Amino acid sequence: MVSVDAGQADACRAEARKRQILDAAARCYRRHGFHATSMQELAREAKMSVGHIYHYFANKEAIIAAFIEEDVEHFREIMKRLREDNLTVAEALVAHAEEAWEDVRNPENAALALEIHAEASRNPKIAEMVRCADRISSDGVFELFVTDLADRQWSPQETRARVEILFTLYEGLFMRVIRNPQIEREPALAAFRLAVDRILA
Amino acid sequence: MVSVDAGQADACRAEARKRQILDAAARCYRRHGFHATSMQELAREAKMSVGHIYHYFANKEAIIAAFIEEDVEHFREIMKRLREDNLTVAEALVAHAEEAWEDVRNPENAALALEIHAEASRNPKIAEMVRCADRISSDGVFELFVTDLADRQWSPQETRARVEILFTLYEGLFMRVIRNPQIEREPALAAFRLAVDRILA
Repeated sequence: MVSVDAGQADACRAEARKRQILDAAARCYRRHGFHATSMQELAREAKMSVGHIYHYFANKEAIIAAFIEEDVEHFREIMKRLREDNLTVAEALVAHAEEAWEDVRNPENAALALEIHAEASRNPKIAEMVRCADRISSDGVFELFVTDLADRQWSPQETRARVEILFTLYEGLFMRVIRNPQIEREPALAAFRLAVDRILA
Repeated sequence: MVSVDAGQADACRAEARKRQILDAAARCYRRHGFHATSMQELAREAKMSVGHIYHYFANKEAIIAAFIEEDVEHFREIMKRLREDNLTVAEALVAHAEEAWEDVRNPENAALALEIHAEASRNPKIAEMVRCADRISSDGVFELFVTDLADRQWSPQETRARVEILFTLYEGLFMRVIRNPQIEREPALAAFRLAVDRILA
C-alpha cells in the first residue's frame, strides 16, 4: 500500500488546479486576447467558479506572471542541459537550434508570446514581469559566455551585445511563424543555425 | 491666385480623414488591443461619428489592412533607397541597419506590430493580410539578392532561407524593445550590424 501524506496530496491537487486554470487561460487569451477576457469567461473555460480561480490567482496579471515564470523555468532547464552536453556553448546552441526552432515556431506558443508582449506594451505591471524574466535569462547566458567563450576576448559590453542579438534572432521566430507559416523548414533551419554560429564567432 | 481642382481637394480631405482615423485607431489598439476596441470607442477617439468612420473603413479589419499596406509601402520606399545608393545590397543593408533599428525599436511601432500579429494569430483574415504583405516584402528582397548577390552562388532555396533569417533578425527587435528597453544602444547596434553582414556572407 502506498501511503500518501495528506499535505502532499493537497499540494498535488493545487498544482493540478493551477494547471487547469493556466491551460484555460492560454486558450482564452489566444482566442480573444488578455484584455478582452474576463474572469467570468476564464471561469467558464476552466469549468470552475470565479471564486475558485481567485483562490489560486489574485488577478489576471498573476496568471500572466505564472506564464512568464514557466518560460523562465523552461529556459533554465534548457541552459542546464546545454551545460551537461560535452560541448562548448557555441556548439551546444547550434546543436540545439532545431529544438529551439520547434519550440518557438509552435504556433500556439508564438500566439501566447505575442499576446503577452502586446499586453506588456500597454500594461506596466506585465512589462516589469517580462523585463525581469528577460534579465534572468540574459544574465544566465551572459555568465555562460563569459566563462565558455573567454577565447573570444569580448569586453563585457560586447558579450552583452552578442547575447542581445542572439535573443533578437530567437524571438524573431515568434513573428515569422505568423508571417510565413509556409516556410521551407530545412533550408531555413540551416540558415538559422548558421546565423547562431556566426553571431557567436 | 492658386486654383485647386474640386476633385483634388476632396481627395485630399478624404486622405486627411483617413489619417485621422488611423492615428486614433493606433492609439486605441495600443491602449486596449484590437479585439477590445469597439467602433464606438474608435469614433470617440477620432472625434467623428461611427457612420463617418464606416464611410472610410468598412470594418475594423479594413483599418488593420490599411496599417499593413502602410508597412508594405514603407518597405518599398526603403528598398527603393537601398537600390539608389551606389552600394551592393549587403553593404546597403549594413549601412541602413541603424535606420531600421530606430524604426523597429520605436516602442509605439513595436506595440502596434505586436498587437497586429497577436490578432493575426487568432483572426484568419488578418493572418492572410500579414502573410500577403510578407510575401511582397520577401519577394522584393529575394529578387534583389538574386541579382545583387549572384557571386554567393546560393541556390534559390538558400537565397529564400537567407531572406527568411534576415527578416527573423529584424522582427526580433519588436520583441526586444519590450523585453529590454534599457539596452546599451551602440554595442547592440554594432552586433546587429555584424549579424546582418554575416547572414549575407
